[in-house]
Amino acid sequence: MLHTTIAAIRPLDEPAMVAAGELHGRLTKPAGSLGVLEELSVRLAGLARSCPPPLPEPAAVAIFAGDHGVHAQGVTPWPQEVTAQMIGNFLAGGAVVNAFARQAGASVTVVDVGVATPLPPAVPAQADGPPGDPAGRSTRTPRLVAANVRPGTRDLAVTAALTRDEALAAVETGIRIARELIDAGAGILLTGDMGIGNTTPAAALVAAFTGVDPAEATGRGTGVDDPTYARKIGVVRAALARHAPDPADPLGVLAAVGGLEHAALAGLILGAAARRVPVLLDGVIAVSAALAAVAFAPDAVGALVAGHRSAEPGATAGLRHLGLDPLIDLGLRLGEGTGALLALPVVTGAVRVLHEVATFDSAGVAEK
Amino acid sequence: MLHTTIAAIRPLDEPAMVAAGELHGRLTKPAGSLGVLEELSVRLAGLARSCPPPLPEPAAVAIFAGDHGVHAQGVTPWPQEVTAQMIGNFLAGGAVVNAFARQAGASVTVVDVGVATPLPPAVPAQADGPPGDPAGRSTRTPRLVAANVRPGTRDLAVTAALTRDEALAAVETGIRIARELIDAGAGILLTGDMGIGNTTPAAALVAAFTGVDPAEATGRGTGVDDPTYARKIGVVRAALARHAPDPADPLGVLAAVGGLEHAALAGLILGAAARRVPVLLDGVIAVSAALAAVAFAPDAVGALVAGHRSAEPGATAGLRHLGLDPLIDLGLRLGEGTGALLALPVVTGAVRVLHEVATFDSAGVAEK
Repeated sequence: MLHTTIAAIRPLDEPAMVAAGELHGRLTKPAGSLGVLEELSVRLAGLARSCPPPLPEPAAVAIFAGDHGVHAQGVTPWPQEVTAQMIGNFLAGGAVVNAFARQAGASVTVVDVGVATPLPPAVPAQADGPPGDPAGRSTRTPRLVAANVRPGTRDLAVTAALTRDEALAAVETGIRIARELIDAGAGILLTGDMGIGNTTPAAALVAAFTGVDPAEATGRGTGVDDPTYARKIGVVRAALARHAPDPADPLGVLAAVGGLEHAALAGLILGAAARRVPVLLDGVIAVSAALAAVAFAPDAVGALVAGHRSAEPGATAGLRHLGLDPLIDLGLRLGEGTGALLALPVVTGAVRVLHEVATFDSAGVAEK
Repeated sequence: MLHTTIAAIRPLDEPAMVAAGELHGRLTKPAGSLGVLEELSVRLAGLARSCPPPLPEPAAVAIFAGDHGVHAQGVTPWPQEVTAQMIGNFLAGGAVVNAFARQAGASVTVVDVGVATPLPPAVPAQADGPPGDPAGRSTRTPRLVAANVRPGTRDLAVTAALTRDEALAAVETGIRIARELIDAGAGILLTGDMGIGNTTPAAALVAAFTGVDPAEATGRGTGVDDPTYARKIGVVRAALARHAPDPADPLGVLAAVGGLEHAALAGLILGAAARRVPVLLDGVIAVSAALAAVAFAPDAVGALVAGHRSAEPGATAGLRHLGLDPLIDLGLRLGEGTGALLALPVVTGAVRVLHEVATFDSAGVAEK
């Protein structure tokens, strides 16, 4: 499944991009006056191979959840059980991602790809079925997909986090979720994540794929204190020295220092890129996964839109490596998909202009 | 009307702000992880004098349109008739502001406060009545309010743009529109503007109120070439030298170097601040008007949210003077209210968190 997906990923379509650029010049606004939105809409035309590209509706947030053996190294003050507890919160609609998804009209699909502790009993687990209508506008009930590869990764400070087979299973879970959401009608996928400790493997992935120093790739996550932050950088540095991951072997990098949600997000990106559906990235977890996806298939970058600039420095290092500029920059460091959801109206607005704005000719407006 | 409005404007309410900060600490997210959105929601609680503050719904965009005698100085390549033609486009729903307003569920009210040329015949002018339901969700038909103070300003390069009485009439038109929109239910007002040549008076207002050099306050507007840009800076510099506007006399500044839409937007801000309803600012025209409003009533700044960072340098100089950081920064330089509309979901999302997100206690999630 991974290889056929990679083989299906192709570059942006030049003729559609040229057509979108020309259309922008005829619309009732000064040329270039929509700034970044014009470039974005041109790229999405290239992705869709049509001008205008389809409106990116409905939107579907996929939250991949996993735990991390490296939690044992004291890289975060939060108990590991919070991963499972927050899944309960997502399914009950009480988290920030739910509030933003309701506002944006986006569906929420939670995928247990590797949670270590039992999910709260009230959670109505839906084994492996399709995640349902991504619009979900009538009920907007978040769904749970049970796809646990293993109950958390091993501790990357002492051994490889995953076997290659486990990493592949998580990547293919992401591909499958992308296909199911797109088959159910989603016009854009938004990345979400939940996993206490998951900024540590994200930092290791960023350092491995971009070559930046671990100190530049590692941030304070949920807001750790100075000693914890220093310990976290040390863990990332030692893990890279121990495993010496090869960035040309993305599955090996994911297995050595990644996480199950990171691997699954890489798969989600590949699955969407193969179907030429855009993926709106959230924060540092998503960016680290995007680096893996682009290492598998360089043209996958054409499907990526950077939602926001996370406060985590690894996100900035990763976006620079990907050549992506984020749409918003508001100091968020929550994850869950919240930053992607805040950026969604910008993406939709950029495309909407090509659908709905009158031309100078049709509106009877003089040009300069 | 101006004096009673100014007298009604009061500081933010500290107890409501403290309550909002404390509530943020109990919600299921790491403390501070929503960055700028947390500060924004705290300010809006202070404005509303309640925690949580009401959701800023429905949103109403007020587009004030006017023409400019300084057009005769060749500060823009666009013909003056485009102001009236674009009003036709707004009322027909064909402009970018319409596309973004439909997406955001915002109403659009166009106010002719000083257009110089005849409006297109098809325009259904609605003389002076209430601008209707600001939600406008059923029809979403843009409305026109006829409130023309005079057919464009005089040329500020050779004389005062307006008399003090004319400037006052425009300010009071803005106050009246704010009251009508709020009486009809609007929970937030968004500034819009249309006026060929209006970045020249905006630059003069920014320079007059902030003290920055005209070269720093003046931008390329719709994208003028180098000779036009140099001429534009010269016009602004000469106008400030000729009129020597006193920033402690905002009505005098508006009369000397302002525009009718700038004055009306200052009134809109004052009218909303007096009713403790937030105003989401668009670009440089709005920022220059906000400088005037805050010169009339310093506490009016508490009602202001900076929607975006316009590509016009005067907007940045003005926002710095106001102590406001914009929510988005995407290189827009279109005006009309488009940047404010793109930022609206961020404002709504910030408030929504205080309404809808579960606490650690209620969700059964452990704290660190």
